[in-house]
Amino acid sequence: MTKLHEECGVFGIAAKTTTDVASPVYYGLHALQHRGQESCGIVVNDDGLFSTHCDLGLVSEVFTQSKLEKLGHGALAVGHCRYGTAKSNDRANCQPIVVNHSKGRLALAHNGSLTNAAQLREEIEATGSIFHTNSDSEVISYVITKERLTAPTIEEAVSRAMSRLEGAYSLVIMSPTKLIAVRDPHGFRPLCYGINEDGDYIVASETCALDAVGAKLIRDIEPGEVLVFKNGEVISDKRHCNTKKRSSCIFEYIYFARPDSVIDECSVHQARKRAGAFLAQEYPVEADVVIGVPDSGLDGALGYAQESGIPYGIGLIKNKYVGRTFIAPTQKMREKAVKMKLNPVSETVKGKRVVLIDDSIVRGTTCANLVRLIRDAGAKEVHMRVLSPKFINCCYYGTDISDPSVLIANNYTTEEIEKRIGVDSLGFLSIESVVKIPNGMPSEDYCIACFNSKYPTAIPEKPKASKFDQKISERKKGE
Amino acid sequence: MTKLHEECGVFGIAAKTTTDVASPVYYGLHALQHRGQESCGIVVNDDGLFSTHCDLGLVSEVFTQSKLEKLGHGALAVGHCRYGTAKSNDRANCQPIVVNHSKGRLALAHNGSLTNAAQLREEIEATGSIFHTNSDSEVISYVITKERLTAPTIEEAVSRAMSRLEGAYSLVIMSPTKLIAVRDPHGFRPLCYGINEDGDYIVASETCALDAVGAKLIRDIEPGEVLVFKNGEVISDKRHCNTKKRSSCIFEYIYFARPDSVIDECSVHQARKRAGAFLAQEYPVEADVVIGVPDSGLDGALGYAQESGIPYGIGLIKNKYVGRTFIAPTQKMREKAVKMKLNPVSETVKGKRVVLIDDSIVRGTTCANLVRLIRDAGAKEVHMRVLSPKFINCCYYGTDISDPSVLIANNYTTEEIEKRIGVDSLGFLSIESVVKIPNGMPSEDYCIACFNSKYPTAIPEKPKASKFDQKISERKKGE
Amino acid sequence: MTKLHEECGVFGIAAKTTTDVASPVYYGLHALQHRGQESCGIVVNDDGLFSTHCDLGLVSEVFTQSKLEKLGHGALAVGHCRYGTAKSNDRANCQPIVVNHSKGRLALAHNGSLTNAAQLREEIEATGSIFHTNSDSEVISYVITKERLTAPTIEEAVSRAMSRLEGAYSLVIMSPTKLIAVRDPHGFRPLCYGINEDGDYIVASETCALDAVGAKLIRDIEPGEVLVFKNGEVISDKRHCNTKKRSSCIFEYIYFARPDSVIDECSVHQARKRAGAFLAQEYPVEADVVIGVPDSGLDGALGYAQESGIPYGIGLIKNKYVGRTFIAPTQKMREKAVKMKLNPVSETVKGKRVVLIDDSIVRGTTCANLVRLIRDAGAKEVHMRVLSPKFINCCYYGTDISDPSVLIANNYTTEEIEKRIGVDSLGFLSIESVVKIPNGMPSEDYCIACFNSKYPTAIPEKPKASKFDQKISERKKGE
Amino acid sequence: MTKLHEECGVFGIAAKTTTDVASPVYYGLHALQHRGQESCGIVVNDDGLFSTHCDLGLVSEVFTQSKLEKLGHGALAVGHCRYGTAKSNDRANCQPIVVNHSKGRLALAHNGSLTNAAQLREEIEATGSIFHTNSDSEVISYVITKERLTAPTIEEAVSRAMSRLEGAYSLVIMSPTKLIAVRDPHGFRPLCYGINEDGDYIVASETCALDAVGAKLIRDIEPGEVLVFKNGEVISDKRHCNTKKRSSCIFEYIYFARPDSVIDECSVHQARKRAGAFLAQEYPVEADVVIGVPDSGLDGALGYAQESGIPYGIGLIKNKYVGRTFIAPTQKMREKAVKMKLNPVSETVKGKRVVLIDDSIVRGTTCANLVRLIRDAGAKEVHMRVLSPKFINCCYYGTDISDPSVLIANNYTTEEIEKRIGVDSLGFLSIESVVKIPNGMPSEDYCIACFNSKYPTAIPEKPKASKFDQKISERKKGE
Repeated sequence: MTKLHEECGVFGIAAKTTTDVASPVYYGLHALQHRGQESCGIVVNDDGLFSTHCDLGLVSEVFTQSKLEKLGHGALAVGHCRYGTAKSNDRANCQPIVVNHSKGRLALAHNGSLTNAAQLREEIEATGSIFHTNSDSEVISYVITKERLTAPTIEEAVSRAMSRLEGAYSLVIMSPTKLIAVRDPHGFRPLCYGINEDGDYIVASETCALDAVGAKLIRDIEPGEVLVFKNGEVISDKRHCNTKKRSSCIFEYIYFARPDSVIDECSVHQARKRAGAFLAQEYPVEADVVIGVPDSGLDGALGYAQESGIPYGIGLIKNKYVGRTFIAPTQKMREKAVKMKLNPVSETVKGKRVVLIDDSIVRGTTCANLVRLIRDAGAKEVHMRVLSPKFINCCYYGTDISDPSVLIANNYTTEEIEKRIGVDSLGFLSIESVVKIPNGMPSEDYCIACFNSKYPTAIPEKPKASKFDQKISERKKGE
Repeated sequence: MTKLHEECGVFGIAAKTTTDVASPVYYGLHALQHRGQESCGIVVNDDGLFSTHCDLGLVSEVFTQSKLEKLGHGALAVGHCRYGTAKSNDRANCQPIVVNHSKGRLALAHNGSLTNAAQLREEIEATGSIFHTNSDSEVISYVITKERLTAPTIEEAVSRAMSRLEGAYSLVIMSPTKLIAVRDPHGFRPLCYGINEDGDYIVASETCALDAVGAKLIRDIEPGEVLVFKNGEVISDKRHCNTKKRSSCIFEYIYFARPDSVIDECSVHQARKRAGAFLAQEYPVEADVVIGVPDSGLDGALGYAQESGIPYGIGLIKNKYVGRTFIAPTQKMREKAVKMKLNPVSETVKGKRVVLIDDSIVRGTTCANLVRLIRDAGAKEVHMRVLSPKFINCCYYGTDISDPSVLIANNYTTEEIEKRIGVDSLGFLSIESVVKIPNGMPSEDYCIACFNSKYPTAIPEKPKASKFDQKISERKKGE
Repeated sequence: MTKLHEECGVFGIAAKTTTDVASPVYYGLHALQHRGQESCGIVVNDDGLFSTHCDLGLVSEVFTQSKLEKLGHGALAVGHCRYGTAKSNDRANCQPIVVNHSKGRLALAHNGSLTNAAQLREEIEATGSIFHTNSDSEVISYVITKERLTAPTIEEAVSRAMSRLEGAYSLVIMSPTKLIAVRDPHGFRPLCYGINEDGDYIVASETCALDAVGAKLIRDIEPGEVLVFKNGEVISDKRHCNTKKRSSCIFEYIYFARPDSVIDECSVHQARKRAGAFLAQEYPVEADVVIGVPDSGLDGALGYAQESGIPYGIGLIKNKYVGRTFIAPTQKMREKAVKMKLNPVSETVKGKRVVLIDDSIVRGTTCANLVRLIRDAGAKEVHMRVLSPKFINCCYYGTDISDPSVLIANNYTTEEIEKRIGVDSLGFLSIESVVKIPNGMPSEDYCIACFNSKYPTAIPEKPKASKFDQKISERKKGE
Repeated sequence: MTKLHEECGVFGIAAKTTTDVASPVYYGLHALQHRGQESCGIVVNDDGLFSTHCDLGLVSEVFTQSKLEKLGHGALAVGHCRYGTAKSNDRANCQPIVVNHSKGRLALAHNGSLTNAAQLREEIEATGSIFHTNSDSEVISYVITKERLTAPTIEEAVSRAMSRLEGAYSLVIMSPTKLIAVRDPHGFRPLCYGINEDGDYIVASETCALDAVGAKLIRDIEPGEVLVFKNGEVISDKRHCNTKKRSSCIFEYIYFARPDSVIDECSVHQARKRAGAFLAQEYPVEADVVIGVPDSGLDGALGYAQESGIPYGIGLIKNKYVGRTFIAPTQKMREKAVKMKLNPVSETVKGKRVVLIDDSIVRGTTCANLVRLIRDAGAKEVHMRVLSPKFINCCYYGTDISDPSVLIANNYTTEEIEKRIGVDSLGFLSIESVVKIPNGMPSEDYCIACFNSKYPTAIPEKPKASKFDQKISERKKGE
């Protein structure tokens, strides 16, 4: 129950023939909905003609049957779902972005965040170019388009453009005739591809989206790789591979990704179970039952239970109807808000010493309410175990934590937090362990900057908005 | 993953003073949403003036902030959510029903189904009365209204009316000055009441709705009891108690109710765990992991695992965004439909002998698809255990199974079903055990007519529609 | 530009064969939209099975293509559009009303207002019957249903029921096999019928609705007549004809009806022209141009111009996009609100002595704003001529004027009104003339109670709500 | 009743202080709604920060109260409503367009159509720039932005950009601190400005929009003029004035503009009356009544009547509820479609020799249906008089007539048309007369290319889409 937000999910399909490609994108985005719930979009490519529909809302809200049918058939398509930050949450910033340029047309879906977007934007604006959005995606489109003026092919333009892009970017790009998958050389965000029974290639942020459309995983896109799908062929350009320090986001395993996904050959479910097992080793406790906070704490709870031998229990039930349109509780009801979302199963916790497993603690407020619920339901003791280290820093690579000063771990010691959230004991997963939970790559290949402040890239000096906006904002401050 | 549908959830509040009673009803219905997702409604009573809003849709869709505010304040309110059968799924049948009569006004929310509705309707129509709907609720309103002509009070009219009603009915009735909770003498459907910190009384189908509004359970309404809330007093009329055979629906424990609810003093979660444990005793098997079908199979899986000693696993992930507006998959995608809703966690099942726990088998189709999914994910063996006996009969008491001929258990032996759904072994919970899962009342106090054909009441001879409709339908058939 | 509201339009079709009867009703209601813009509904009768859709909104909003198609085919259908008073403006009061009774089913669309509804309701409630709405239509349905218990046919029940109904009622009633048109013995509201090329009979409030569906007018329904359409036959029951004083509403000609309609054999357009001509005789003036307030003042302006010899001009343009969803202007803009709806054509009025023709003056506020507009546009003089006498009384026969105390003519003399609205001279059509504008029946056959206080029936002693509501309202007043 | 479509209305406000500028834009666009009904948008400028809302739909549909409030306050705002051609009718093409560039930000609303857009687009794309839309507005934004790199001010950039733009453009441009009104040197489309009581300046396509917000007309913007509103000052740059042949669109007077507007100092109402008067001189006829087709034929009918001495009549009533959501009549009803929109007043035409006045004839189908209606209503003779010459050519300056081959005047002689539409005589206004109807400027200062093929500019050699799209379209044709 964290307030962190992944910013995007991407999906693409290169079918063997012109067909209903919009439907698999719809189902794929639906499977990736947890990566971005604010807006979504699909672009279908019928032999060079692009049909687009993007809007604010969930996939199932934005795409009615008629909207989906209107997209028509094609051999290529690309889709995107995104979490919009307050700043950018208007329709203009919905993706995939579609742009026209001198040599054709481009649709682009982006997961991640550039660290040099502001500089790039400034350079491009200096040539008299105009921007319609605040998004990195438009910056990336421009960089590719400029390279395309001299590059012989779109994929060559993409590869050249990568030399200029810094930061996190998993991209699915669609030209009139090709689908191109790109993962930045650090490999911050996941990206994989597979094939379905008809021989259509699918690119997606997570394997659960391949599963949803009945495709088999072929492999992850390598950090730095450009993979081109054209006329049934798949061509890999690895010139950018191994040019930068591998830095895959560990938080994908802890919270962002779906537990049924496999990222960089490691099961997310297993990673979470392992996190729970590590916690059992690091913070053992005498207790009667281990319960997880649904949904992301359940796997970890099972891991803790199995490692510790303490029985696993179902202690919290989530109301599955709490969604976007649910009315914000009235003032009087607010304190009971957690209860509307999560309700304890008394029989599981009454008179018990409870180990409570959650994925992370951000501000601590929700956590405190939750602990109170469990105590009210009769728990004798509550021992909280957190599936991640203390969360203390901004992320510049595509997740949203605006202001580190609100993070509870920046303001209180573990003992203080213990008291504030009202638990009998509290344990955060160690930094040494967290990098071992995927049990895949060497520890140093994961980015854990949000825990240990070691950023794998230079961090942005200035915001991404145009110079002009900075001036406005400075002036406004001066008032 | 059954296709059975509970038909309703009811909720009422009798506050100490005029206040925002619509909000607790909203949250309460939200907690009862699983009992009926097709329509919902709230009626607020401000000193005799009723404000109503009912419509098709989820609670969160029907009640926007402004719709909720428009209901205004009051001291009493009643709410309802319902599953609409094809026949009745139009706005006119939304509840609570509000009727005006010579001595005042009545709002009524009903969970259950009368077995003598057709006869009652015919009698009432014979006096020149008109019906606006096909619902039992209108029949009940009429019977009460007719009694009210001579009864000194509304509660007396209700009590007298009960002598004429046969079948299942848990009611929340609101008169201009009173809230009345009624449970039929068989006690088919649950109904309980509690009190919040302000001293407001709450009536609800399940305790999870009391929890959602921060109320403490006082007790279940007794079968046959009429409980009147007026001016802070609670008066119980038990003249109908113990007049009929107790017949509480066992399926509430297996599937309908939320696991965090406690019905007739028995925890639903515990009942499901116990069902799993009984299955482990009745159908032991050598296996590596026990997994449940979310959400209703999870508790049973945990019970089977603990009883058998086989490890519990998280083997299926449910896409929480699959909702009402999700587009029906295209023909080509249909076979993959199950996968969009449920995706296996390969790491949990690969190379394993899996025990798969589900709440019931209705037609068997979904079940077969699910088993295939798990096998495709690498399971070596799949042993299915079902938390209920074979489901073979119609229910006349408020759940929806139109046609028993489609039930797989009516057409095939266990061995045949085993083959059709593709499992290595299959076990249904025994009739002897199922009545023991709540671990509360004597076995014979539960209605298990859907399993053993012993109906606790006469069953309806004719459909509930008016004589006139029957004629039309006969004529249409004749064509 | 009056604030009076007609309360309803009714429409029915009895086709020769089962066909798409919903479409003609849709187009017919569309042509009657001016008679009621708050809600509308259609009921299609397929051999006894009724399909209904009613909702708040304009015909074009309520009936999408899919909603219309869902109504299916049938041989009979009835439709209704209505203006809802504040009290009754919720979905439950939408018409046609559909009720089930012991001998079948009834759909009923009503234009008018009973004067003895409260008494009838009280009597019916005293037998233990319940009411779902506050509408007269439900009362009428009940009276018919009660008669139907002993009457051999539905049309006989209708005829008998008429002996008990007092006031204004033009009805279209649909039974499983018949369409029945009824006009009260006073003939307050219009009702006519016609036939289309296929031999289908059409009943409608106004001839413009016959035109809209390509039907030829046969004749008006006579006051007191019951006309039954069954199996291609038309049977007239005139037992109630000539039993009461003829009292056709004169305001239908002045404002309510469409100018292209012909009511009781008199053209509405001609009646308005004649009203203008009478005004020219009664209040001649030296002037340069005669302009009408769109839309209902235009015909009268032409009549005044032709009679007086003063040139007709187009002096005010109406913004045709001002509709229901137009945002109420902000406080600052309010005074300019009239201008958003009506804008003067300067060239027509600049430097001119203008005769301004409007249908009526209710409160006078809008009128004053309008005169200011015309003066601002350069008019040298403004002489207002009103196409009706001073409006001073309530109407109990189906139009909406809640409170006579707000009527400007009840509070000021003509000279005072002249000053308040800022005109150089003002003339209201005389009572002697207004009854001659249709140029059809004898003067005494028109109801002009709103002008001369001579009501053709007893007027209601009490409101129509149930006794119970009266008590609430008395108690609330007492607080 | 023509099928020609104006493509846009523009509106801007430069207030003296930060205030609710969105409301006047809303009311102004509402008054300009007839110029474009497919989409609309408003951009509010709060000290450099732009808030935008644009969408498909009418002004009253797109801007709910909450949407309008969300735009906030500002000192400058610009709005747009547009008619979207099939090609461009998606949300991306909604205006005003907002772009960010190196020196700031720009909102731009455009009425008209460039003739060299394709060339300009090609040049810009060749520098590696990207286009999000197919609109001329984006091309204009780019040209201005490129000039802005070297121009000292935005208004200087606009003025320089004008040297590169060919065709029709009335623009309202908003920079962070200025509002700029621009009219192309030919003066194709109208543009005027005024001032309200608070001293706020208003720019609008037509004076009716000034009226709607209570502003007084100051004057028309001159062809070629750039008018800058900044800090309460108004600065005029006339360097482009008188550089090209004046060519104001005559069709604005005949059909596009509202009759209460005054364009280039000539009243639209008077122009239409004069057109009617000319027709009376050119095609006199013995007749009994002159009627106009609402709404645009009414003024002309009055002119014909007054000139000829034949009485003016109200012969056709328009159903004011026919709007965008009205369901397309079913096949069977289609032939009666005209009747649903227009219904004859029999009393006006029965037994009469009727002169029927319409603004133009495009394909002739609607016209033929209309004549039949009038004959069916009893007209003895129908003499049609058309307020414009024969319409035979494409317009490249902002109105929509896709394919001249469908124009009836290109396929038949007047005598043949007479027969096809079924009139007794037919007269089109002469080319000599049409240019005299505004009675303002010399005849040669009006563009009548659609009548006489004399285009005042070079006409586009190629479509405006990118070279890339042309290739696709050629390839598709080749298939």
